[in-house]
Amino acid sequence: MTHPDTIAALVARLRKGDTRALARAISLVENDAPESASLLSACFPHTGSGLRIGITGAPGAGKSTLVDRLARAFRETPEGREANKTVGVIAVDPTSPFTGGAILGDRIRFQDRHGDSGFYARSMATRGSLGGLALATADVALVLEASGKDVLLIETVGVGQDEIEIARLADITVVVLVPGMGDDVQSLKAGVMEIADIFVVNKSDREGADRVEQEIRGLQSLASDHPDHTPPVIRTIATTGDGLDNLATAISEMEEWLRADNRLAKRRTQHWQRRLDAMLRTELMRRARQNGFDAKILQFHAARIASGQQDPWQLVAQLTEKVFSPANSS
Amino acid sequence: MTHPDTIAALVARLRKGDTRALARAISLVENDAPESASLLSACFPHTGSGLRIGITGAPGAGKSTLVDRLARAFRETPEGREANKTVGVIAVDPTSPFTGGAILGDRIRFQDRHGDSGFYARSMATRGSLGGLALATADVALVLEASGKDVLLIETVGVGQDEIEIARLADITVVVLVPGMGDDVQSLKAGVMEIADIFVVNKSDREGADRVEQEIRGLQSLASDHPDHTPPVIRTIATTGDGLDNLATAISEMEEWLRADNRLAKRRTQHWQRRLDAMLRTELMRRARQNGFDAKILQFHAARIASGQQDPWQLVAQLTEKVFSPANSS
Repeated sequence: MTHPDTIAALVARLRKGDTRALARAISLVENDAPESASLLSACFPHTGSGLRIGITGAPGAGKSTLVDRLARAFRETPEGREANKTVGVIAVDPTSPFTGGAILGDRIRFQDRHGDSGFYARSMATRGSLGGLALATADVALVLEASGKDVLLIETVGVGQDEIEIARLADITVVVLVPGMGDDVQSLKAGVMEIADIFVVNKSDREGADRVEQEIRGLQSLASDHPDHTPPVIRTIATTGDGLDNLATAISEMEEWLRADNRLAKRRTQHWQRRLDAMLRTELMRRARQNGFDAKILQFHAARIASGQQDPWQLVAQLTEKVFSPANSS
Repeated sequence: MTHPDTIAALVARLRKGDTRALARAISLVENDAPESASLLSACFPHTGSGLRIGITGAPGAGKSTLVDRLARAFRETPEGREANKTVGVIAVDPTSPFTGGAILGDRIRFQDRHGDSGFYARSMATRGSLGGLALATADVALVLEASGKDVLLIETVGVGQDEIEIARLADITVVVLVPGMGDDVQSLKAGVMEIADIFVVNKSDREGADRVEQEIRGLQSLASDHPDHTPPVIRTIATTGDGLDNLATAISEMEEWLRADNRLAKRRTQHWQRRLDAMLRTELMRRARQNGFDAKILQFHAARIASGQQDPWQLVAQLTEKVFSPANSS
């Protein structure tokens, strides 16, 4: 499938709601297939109106259940609130393949939604090198959006650097905490507090909900990526659905705020700047590998460096010189 | 300080035990100063014999105290074991500047070692983009090694991807766990179990030490980066020093095992391959930025992409083509 016509046909099919075409397109993008760039190019004109919501927080905070409830809230039409939106869910698990996969099992509950063409859920694990996962997630979200999904829920399993990068590419970031996280709450929050647009205290019927909220209030005064917006703190019990209406309202209000005064456009420009940087990095490396930076050559040099026969900094200067030199392009 | 003679003078001074020269050299490398590559090049011939020990594990596992004890054990000379080695400590904290810095405070206790020219401790925070920290840590370790340190203890504060990358560049990786980590133990271990050469159950006087050891035994049978070596599990109480002798012995045995059958050379070749890849990536991006990929241009394009006026994949293809084209090098 390398001919542009076939890409166009695939995009036309996924645009019409063909779930198998959508699944295939996502796989191509997730696996970074050679036709990935042209597929994304073909999807790009059909994007821009969807809302990306990132949901992150410590493991065990009940994010999956919350995302499930949130998806239902967007699909159904309660009184007084615009809803009945189409929803795409991406569950990202950047942990190792060995302990990973839990999130995939969780997603089995989504099967009761089979037959609902306005809903699609997909799990993702790692792609390629460090930082590649955030890019891959953004790419998959773009394909989902092109398929006509109004809302994209992007859920990450943990709170590491990868998850922060993923959350940073969302329009709205929801950070989920739970009471009783103990002394580690501080370290888990590192880097995550700053990116929050909305805080959720889930399992809020547990003892300590007040304390968690106080801690959030205390920490959020210290630092934020968005100093012009004070994130609300919403209490939920995802298992019963308590507080989900409040969360949906908070998301709607945040969306309104973002759409006013060009804020969403500014935020997306920042996102695209980060993405462009990562895309360029990836593409440069791909081209460099074709120009003599392949794994075998690196291994040969690495063995010589390890035994002290080759200076790595001189080598890097020589190799990059070779890539950038005119003679190389002949 | 751009003249090679000055670099040579700085390296000569740090080789003679001049702590201020060492501190200055490390700062240059940590800040990725323009003379960083030539400084590292000048240090490189004086490295290769030092042993790098990575210490990682969940926050609150008592790693700092353990590292402190281990440093003492290497500096002092107990009966029956070769010791009195010079020691360098690098404490790496990749958390945000906002919540980070705790580890720096901890390191104040090392001040009682002032005047001991065979000991040097240094804290590090993030450098540059994702993945940059592992590279920076490896670079700082190289400078420390060139200054004549026999043992390099590299301690990370958490268990994220950054920390795993850092630990992967050590010769020996020690993973520290504690009893009573609760349900999150599984998720915290993700990716960390595989890289362990030695497990430590610290605070082993607490209830649950047996259970943690059982969990380690259960998980380690599933996956390891080094299937030919079964990591020992050492119980310690870092605050009292209990079990530290056993840990030191386990490290010595691991070192012997690594030095036999060329295993250390093989492992270091793998490390250099990862490092070379990262170094090339960084250098390519640096050169690309000089060739029109600077932040201002990316921001201009990002705004056009965010408003749907520019296809990012076509743009990336055009920009990389420009970098690789002969005309550009004129």
